[in-house]
Amino acid sequence: MTLSLAASTDLAAEMAALGRAARAAARVLALARPEAKNAALIAAAAALRQSAAGIVAANRRDYEEAAARGTAPAFLDRLKLDGPRIEAMAKGLEDIAALPDPVGRTLATFTRPNGLVIERVATPLGVVGVIYESRPNVTADAGGLCLKSGNAAILRGGSESFRSTQAIHACLVEGLRAAGLPEAAISRAPTTDRAAVGMMLAGLDGAIDVIVPRGGKSLVARVQSEARVPVFAHLDGIVHVYVHAAADLEVARRIVLNSKMRRTGVCGAAETLLVDRACAATHLAPLVATLLGAGCAVRGDAATQAVDPRVTPASEEDWGTEYLDAIIAVKIVDGLDAAIAHVERYGSHHTDCIVTRDEAAAERFLAEVDSAIVLRNASTQFADGGEFGFGAEIGIATGRMHARGPVGVEQLTSFNYRVRGDGQVRP
Amino acid sequence: MTLSLAASTDLAAEMAALGRAARAAARVLALARPEAKNAALIAAAAALRQSAAGIVAANRRDYEEAAARGTAPAFLDRLKLDGPRIEAMAKGLEDIAALPDPVGRTLATFTRPNGLVIERVATPLGVVGVIYESRPNVTADAGGLCLKSGNAAILRGGSESFRSTQAIHACLVEGLRAAGLPEAAISRAPTTDRAAVGMMLAGLDGAIDVIVPRGGKSLVARVQSEARVPVFAHLDGIVHVYVHAAADLEVARRIVLNSKMRRTGVCGAAETLLVDRACAATHLAPLVATLLGAGCAVRGDAATQAVDPRVTPASEEDWGTEYLDAIIAVKIVDGLDAAIAHVERYGSHHTDCIVTRDEAAAERFLAEVDSAIVLRNASTQFADGGEFGFGAEIGIATGRMHARGPVGVEQLTSFNYRVRGDGQVRP
Repeated sequence: MTLSLAASTDLAAEMAALGRAARAAARVLALARPEAKNAALIAAAAALRQSAAGIVAANRRDYEEAAARGTAPAFLDRLKLDGPRIEAMAKGLEDIAALPDPVGRTLATFTRPNGLVIERVATPLGVVGVIYESRPNVTADAGGLCLKSGNAAILRGGSESFRSTQAIHACLVEGLRAAGLPEAAISRAPTTDRAAVGMMLAGLDGAIDVIVPRGGKSLVARVQSEARVPVFAHLDGIVHVYVHAAADLEVARRIVLNSKMRRTGVCGAAETLLVDRACAATHLAPLVATLLGAGCAVRGDAATQAVDPRVTPASEEDWGTEYLDAIIAVKIVDGLDAAIAHVERYGSHHTDCIVTRDEAAAERFLAEVDSAIVLRNASTQFADGGEFGFGAEIGIATGRMHARGPVGVEQLTSFNYRVRGDGQVRP
Repeated sequence: MTLSLAASTDLAAEMAALGRAARAAARVLALARPEAKNAALIAAAAALRQSAAGIVAANRRDYEEAAARGTAPAFLDRLKLDGPRIEAMAKGLEDIAALPDPVGRTLATFTRPNGLVIERVATPLGVVGVIYESRPNVTADAGGLCLKSGNAAILRGGSESFRSTQAIHACLVEGLRAAGLPEAAISRAPTTDRAAVGMMLAGLDGAIDVIVPRGGKSLVARVQSEARVPVFAHLDGIVHVYVHAAADLEVARRIVLNSKMRRTGVCGAAETLLVDRACAATHLAPLVATLLGAGCAVRGDAATQAVDPRVTPASEEDWGTEYLDAIIAVKIVDGLDAAIAHVERYGSHHTDCIVTRDEAAAERFLAEVDSAIVLRNASTQFADGGEFGFGAEIGIATGRMHARGPVGVEQLTSFNYRVRGDGQVRP
């Protein structure tokens, strides 16, 4: 007991020191030249390539330990690193280096009648805490995005990937050192102790400005419920495709299939198909046949069940379920208002789509569905920072504060006002 | 005990119902036409004028009760309403109506190589909780700003102004009704029970998106420490004017005097004067004389004490004190770096100013001082949404999330992405 108390006191002191060092590094990073940040990213990419064998070896130990514990295959697959995955991380850092610098952008300028020129300029947020599961590549992605946006990062990866994270983090530090930037600009919780997560969620005595969780629903739920600092995240991606009365069947078929089946495990994958009653007679059966033919299980309301014996009944719960799998829930709705009402009731304000040739209906859907991303006639799988042209993203946020939708380097900035006068005083 | 438990259960149920009604109203407001919102504001202004006698009578009862309890004169002054103050509230609502509508603005548009057109559009935040002290005019200001920005508001004014708040709120509801908008769009905690504040800070079961506190430091501190939802606020306004080596004395004199003495009780009032050692021989004595001559008490370091016997010694505590009074702390600093370091160490990241004719020094100060508002050669009292051209402001925020600096109607909005395609799917 005494020992564990001492250990936890030590950890608290260590994490607090990490926080203070990150805060100091954030100040340096905020003022760093773009060239220095880019040099660090490029040097880190080189270090990843040079250290590939060591990273793979560290990862093998993580992997074998996890496999010996009988960890699920999907988990093991995310954990595993090999040459191509390390190369992808290195390339990712170089891509981030190639993005325009998000700090110092002039977001607005206005001149007041008294001659004051007021400029709104992008500044970093400060210190970003990143809490993720055993996907070691997040170490490089998140560290790189924070660095580019002038923010210090405190990374806390899953305990099963501890050695992998450590090896990748060492390369990031090598990059920082090569560029003359403080090593504390990207730091790492030095422990697998879960208490470190709680300390980060409490904000490390004001050292952390925002938390970004990367991982499954239970991680995000814990972070959202416990964090005492702002969180950029989404809990669910209950994504709808609504096939409106005036939808072209071929366009609908293409968009529904791609939205659901291109990749079923991403947050922008469709989970519910709403078909307007007005086109159900012509569109429902072909859409269901397309989905079934592609290997997607279909759960439907009575009308949907009637079109194919392989359709199983959808329960109330299905309308609020994110399957992240080759399963879709299908429902007939009575017109645009009913579709919007369904999305608002069961959706997660992430990404939703209308398929229609009717301009007015499309625009009403775009205006009235309160989701981070609303599309007309395009696959929901475009819900992605890269597809938006933001470069890499640290995640997709469904909150309404600060960042909403894909969170790229621009969304990792704040701003301040710089006011230039020539002696003005206020009457 | 049973009774008070029952009462608190009742209050919790009542507040939760208020939250649900506000959330439903927010959905209606988000889609309301600008004309409807403006009609409500104008009708509310008319109702205030028509009800002026009743408001003054309600206020008199609040005032007499507070005065009988021996409440401080400054508090009583803020509580008091009369004809001109009611007219100012009504005019304030009309001014808000005249602002451009902040909802639906296109913030950015970009076309992707695949032809997708992605638009970022301003949307309301949702439900804003406003917690304020006994300044009944905040009822109209905050209610009006939330309405204009398409947000539902839940107002909780100080208990000493309960009747005044109720009377003003009734006029806002009259305006909403006249415009066909839901009355729950601006609601009011129906009690002086402080437990209602705690419930709002907990977010009313997810019904409140953001809290805005309006009042003194103890209120803001409580809100910041207890809120489980984002807060737009500043705790302190420890505002600096730095007179650089290359400052014109007359410009410095005018800016220092205005920054400190125009109004001493506002958050943008200067609290500390930093004078560069390089110009102290010529500038310090005249600046101190100007301040003393204007009735400002001066607390200074040794050099400042040496220029006038009326200067009293400044202690370490003075550098971190927001006087909100005719008192200033004065210190000699060794150059620009020392000035910036002082501001970063003791400041509150609110508003800071450099006075100089040196372009490079001015720009370094603007770039390196991490405050919401940084000025060169202009009074710190310009730290005000009206002076920035934002129209009215609900407050000034020093946090880095979402809103920073003056929080006007534009800062009370979020955004979403509206994506227009013609059948694009993701490869």
